Amino acid sequence: MASQIPDVVIFRLPLYLRILTLLTEENAEVVSSQELGARLWMTPAQIRKDLSYFGKFGKQGKGYNIAQLREELRQILGLNREWCVALIGVGRLGKAILDYGMLALREFNIVAAFDIDPHQIGRNVSGLMIQDLAELADTVKSQGIEICIVAVPPSQVQRAIDCVVDCGIKAILNYAPAAARVPKDVRMQEVDPTLALQTMTYHLKSLSSP
Amino acid sequence: MASQIPDVVIFRLPLYLRILTLLTEENAEVVSSQELGARLWMTPAQIRKDLSYFGKFGKQGKGYNIAQLREELRQILGLNREWCVALIGVGRLGKAILDYGMLALREFNIVAAFDIDPHQIGRNVSGLMIQDLAELADTVKSQGIEICIVAVPPSQVQRAIDCVVDCGIKAILNYAPAAARVPKDVRMQEVDPTLALQTMTYHLKSLSSP
Repeated sequence: MASQIPDVVIFRLPLYLRILTLLTEENAEVVSSQELGARLWMTPAQIRKDLSYFGKFGKQGKGYNIAQLREELRQILGLNREWCVALIGVGRLGKAILDYGMLALREFNIVAAFDIDPHQIGRNVSGLMIQDLAELADTVKSQGIEICIVAVPPSQVQRAIDCVVDCGIKAILNYAPAAARVPKDVRMQEVDPTLALQTMTYHLKSLSSP
Repeated sequence: MASQIPDVVIFRLPLYLRILTLLTEENAEVVSSQELGARLWMTPAQIRKDLSYFGKFGKQGKGYNIAQLREELRQILGLNREWCVALIGVGRLGKAILDYGMLALREFNIVAAFDIDPHQIGRNVSGLMIQDLAELADTVKSQGIEICIVAVPPSQVQRAIDCVVDCGIKAILNYAPAAARVPKDVRMQEVDPTLALQTMTYHLKSLSSP
């Protein structure tokens, strides 16, 4: 089934999940495709089509059962278990990642942190002892790490990512402001607010000079 | 011209710009669509098509002049000037944003920071005095702020964004892990590593159970 679902649909599933979680917090039990559409700026038809890839969730005219749909999406996305994550690069950016946000997600557990700077190795940051990147392969095996977050300076990105790939990691979240290459069987997503800012200035510019 | 260019092409322009900047640092002067394609995992035809929206940059068989293409893209994206940015929310996340990354971008200058917590207001963070959010409208005018970065807790996102929109801001970068609504003439981009992580687990799951 997986190979038939367009990537763009997979990308939208976490958005659905986020809205369903908010609705759960609002004590809602049922939601219509109209309501989901209104919250996500999508047409109800698009939402029904997206969700139809994964089977029949909604009943005609009755809307979706939120708890059930949420659980199904969590299973589809592989979020009904914990994932062990390693952080590569514990400079200012890496420390900020350890310090906020990521650790709040119960599915993603940062269990190890690595650097190549001898001054950093052995230090304790947010409860983790920073390890030498040379130990990555062993730790990936012993701790069952499946995802790496890369937060190194741009000049070191490709080297860090090559090292991660050599350890058999198939999913990389890259915070570094630099493009890097990975083999085809490795998924890499980039977190780069610069890109978002740069597309917004295009639109701001268009507003001021119509 | 602007309205005819698909959003998906606009989204790719910062990616081109990033590669061109890297190539400049490598002292390259000319680049082919083949080489750009190899670096961006895109076909040369797609790259030529994207760039054709903005006029004739390349010469047949000679490739693109990197400095010229880079300058043109910077102009198209509105990056040939400085943009004044305000930060809304100076908790752990906001402080991390002030502390790294964003301020390193010369085009984006965070000139003011706001919070609603009386314990934060008046404090100095990374050279900025945290202001009361109630002062946002006045500061937007006096400092020429055009972009707001929102980094508040999920429960306060909609309130913060409504406040930003009321001040006439048309571009918002939302770091908060919560969906929020904006009027149609306001551009909002979300920075949410959760979404990226959640799509990767889908693919990891598929790898382990083919």
